[in-house]
Amino acid sequence: MASLWLLLGLLLSSSAEAGKLLVIPSDGSHWLGMKPIVEELGRRGNQVVVVIPEASLSMGPSEHTTTLTYPVNYTKAELKASIADEFNTILSIDISTDLTKNTEGLLFNKDLMKKLQEYNFDAILTDPFEPVGAIAGEYLSIPAVYMLINHPCGVDTLSSQCPAPASYVPQAFTHFTDRMNLWQRSVNLVRTLLQPMACERMFARADEIASHVLKRKASMVEIMSHAALWFLRFDFAVEFPRPVMPNMVMIGATVSQKPKPLSQGPLTKELEEFVNGSGEHGFVVFTLGSMVSQLPEAKARELFEAFRQIPQRVLWRHTGPVPENAPKNVKLMKWLPQNDLLGHPKVKAFITHGGSHGIYEGICNGVPMVMLPLFGDQGDNVQRLVSRGVAEALSIHDLTAEKLLVALRKVINDKSYKEKITELSAIHRDRPIEPLDLAVFWTEFVMRHKGAAHLRPAAHELNWIQYHSLDVIGFLLLILVTVIFVTVKSCMFCFRKCFKKTQKKKKE
Amino acid sequence: MASLWLLLGLLLSSSAEAGKLLVIPSDGSHWLGMKPIVEELGRRGNQVVVVIPEASLSMGPSEHTTTLTYPVNYTKAELKASIADEFNTILSIDISTDLTKNTEGLLFNKDLMKKLQEYNFDAILTDPFEPVGAIAGEYLSIPAVYMLINHPCGVDTLSSQCPAPASYVPQAFTHFTDRMNLWQRSVNLVRTLLQPMACERMFARADEIASHVLKRKASMVEIMSHAALWFLRFDFAVEFPRPVMPNMVMIGATVSQKPKPLSQGPLTKELEEFVNGSGEHGFVVFTLGSMVSQLPEAKARELFEAFRQIPQRVLWRHTGPVPENAPKNVKLMKWLPQNDLLGHPKVKAFITHGGSHGIYEGICNGVPMVMLPLFGDQGDNVQRLVSRGVAEALSIHDLTAEKLLVALRKVINDKSYKEKITELSAIHRDRPIEPLDLAVFWTEFVMRHKGAAHLRPAAHELNWIQYHSLDVIGFLLLILVTVIFVTVKSCMFCFRKCFKKTQKKKKE
Repeated sequence: MASLWLLLGLLLSSSAEAGKLLVIPSDGSHWLGMKPIVEELGRRGNQVVVVIPEASLSMGPSEHTTTLTYPVNYTKAELKASIADEFNTILSIDISTDLTKNTEGLLFNKDLMKKLQEYNFDAILTDPFEPVGAIAGEYLSIPAVYMLINHPCGVDTLSSQCPAPASYVPQAFTHFTDRMNLWQRSVNLVRTLLQPMACERMFARADEIASHVLKRKASMVEIMSHAALWFLRFDFAVEFPRPVMPNMVMIGATVSQKPKPLSQGPLTKELEEFVNGSGEHGFVVFTLGSMVSQLPEAKARELFEAFRQIPQRVLWRHTGPVPENAPKNVKLMKWLPQNDLLGHPKVKAFITHGGSHGIYEGICNGVPMVMLPLFGDQGDNVQRLVSRGVAEALSIHDLTAEKLLVALRKVINDKSYKEKITELSAIHRDRPIEPLDLAVFWTEFVMRHKGAAHLRPAAHELNWIQYHSLDVIGFLLLILVTVIFVTVKSCMFCFRKCFKKTQKKKKE
Repeated sequence: MASLWLLLGLLLSSSAEAGKLLVIPSDGSHWLGMKPIVEELGRRGNQVVVVIPEASLSMGPSEHTTTLTYPVNYTKAELKASIADEFNTILSIDISTDLTKNTEGLLFNKDLMKKLQEYNFDAILTDPFEPVGAIAGEYLSIPAVYMLINHPCGVDTLSSQCPAPASYVPQAFTHFTDRMNLWQRSVNLVRTLLQPMACERMFARADEIASHVLKRKASMVEIMSHAALWFLRFDFAVEFPRPVMPNMVMIGATVSQKPKPLSQGPLTKELEEFVNGSGEHGFVVFTLGSMVSQLPEAKARELFEAFRQIPQRVLWRHTGPVPENAPKNVKLMKWLPQNDLLGHPKVKAFITHGGSHGIYEGICNGVPMVMLPLFGDQGDNVQRLVSRGVAEALSIHDLTAEKLLVALRKVINDKSYKEKITELSAIHRDRPIEPLDLAVFWTEFVMRHKGAAHLRPAAHELNWIQYHSLDVIGFLLLILVTVIFVTVKSCMFCFRKCFKKTQKKKKE
């Protein structure tokens, strides 16, 4: 109980000495994860300024904060168009340019940058997925808190000097688990060694902009190595256990809230009737995330065919054309209260693309999953759940009604899926402090103490050769060789002397 | 505020489903650090059974717990005698035998072991400094929570597979900081490489006993690699930042309590008069820990000489003979309320041996220190504080009045010591959850979930060659060599064919 009063005291006292925080978020689901933290920080009396581009997919004003926008040379429609219909090819977009699309918009906007400077912020909270925030923080010389799920080139491990042994820490996009065979470990080692080059390529344009803005040769990996803290939006209930650094704070699933009864949400009557009428067989929830609401018609037909053959009802977030003979157990909706549905006692399975938000909602509510990974980190997320025996994975590319049916029946009828996800759910929800409170505490900590220098490892002061002790190994080898050389020479010298004496004696 | 209610709910709910915990502590200051956690776990309704030898220095009954004792072949007087008067030589004692002095007492006690088995414990909390608890936990097949400050052979990093790059993570007893020169890094690398051998030697006797008890070839490093959790009793405000594993919980300074006004403690009048009468110059606290209360007479004379020359008053925990002309500003006492004195507004400096409890009390209260390391981890502790500019270190071996005087005047008169320790104190005390609550939560977590398997890295399933990817490097080299070989052979074959044709043509 003592801790409660201490926490209460902490809450009150820290609001008293509130700080000034700059927030530069990233778009899409990135913002959905950061928003609750930002709003809570504002609610607690901190002066929070959120800077976003005029055009974005999901970013907008948040409560208890000031929002500043800057003009960019693209529109929301263009952003949407670049994502719609091409979820299969998203990785082929020139990511180096794509990531910096808004960077010049803010950093070259002299008026806004001057305004930000005048704010005299105590810290910046930003998502390093897009480099704009990291460069702005470096330019303003304020301590930076980075928040991300995972990064395509693993900049978080590189910049934080976090060891990631290639033998059991799978690289992003490999879809490997932490138990790899010789071939997988070989691929993983090569990928690990190529990581710095991958980051260099990915940040090519950002490095140029950063060097220009900071008026020195700069790279994103180096800029991010100055991070005070890293908020990693994962939890070891999902992520494979691996080394972490003292300045990493695991805040997995900050957004997951308690599911509400459907009657308290929107779409009340329609949904309640459908769901409650599902009988003993229950229902299945099917969504493919905020970026994809429409599947190619051929794929959709296969899905309808599969759903026709199961006794469960299906709630599907779908905006595409509906075939004439769509099965009656399927209900299509433009939007679903996903978390509330997953918390409903009659839910039997969750068909998902494996985005981070979705899987944590699935885990929180203990619902077995059938996963259809589309792009980005989803393929890796799938592996994490499949390896724990709580999900089945299918490829969207060769999806057939038959395959979906087999997977769905498996996760619904084989009791082990439900048992394991219930266990995983219990572990995930059992924590000493809520992730949101942890994120809020540590952001305020950085503002209070002007950074977190005590958590910065001395590794940052070593170059690559020193870090890996290569100079030491050379030095020790040199000593060894010298000792051997001197010993051998001395022995030979003694031997010769003795030999000469013996010869002399013989001659005498 | 939501978190408060959640925490409250958690506190209440977890008391409802209380567990059964076996506690096998280690003696001396080790027990002092574990006792508050054990008592809190008992207070919260868990059935806590503490098993200790009949003879010990500091272990005894604790509140809200059941204490079981077992006979050992030594007495308390013998234990004391082995420590008194030989604090300089403590490391020369045969540590392998010394650490296992109580191991046979418990493990070969069939009645008690049978009794423990019948308890059907959910988990064991033990200090792996003495191997008895770890072996008992393995024998009983229950999840183990290990709690330690640091280990002479670094068994915590070895057994948890925690990376500790030799380039910036100083080994125990080297007295290095995290910034090492080439020579220091060389020594540190050699020490790191020798670590497994050091553990083997240190646990030689324990490994024998473990193999006997478990009826299989066992080693302490392997037994401890099964740990569910490691509670590390340090804080990165003191410890140099370095990689950690997900199953490590930093619970630095669990014992540090808020200092009480002296009037509320024992020795009220005597102390209060002395302390309050110290005027603007204030006073100095001087203790050498629970194991040493008496210094050799020659050393003591030097100290008296130094104290005679400072304007501060000195409170000294000392039981040795007092010289006739002892200075009047020195007060000798058999026991001191150390934490309460360090929390007094008039305290100016703390002369300490650098034991973990003492330094955390010094940091909590923000008191600059003069450090006289005696043995064990104290030399390393000293380096950590000296490198942060909050303490001066002296060697007890060549201590003179002059040297002590210089150091004391420095930490008292040079404002930077006070400023830096005040800052360090603020950082150390600013945390999202109290270490005691963290330790209690995670111990109960292990009891609730029968371990913490989700935090166990896959590294444990790899052998040394696999972990370091040496087989992968061999495999990749083999591929490379094969490719080069085939390419060269093919080129040579083509070249010869062409060459022959040309020759034929020429001949024709």
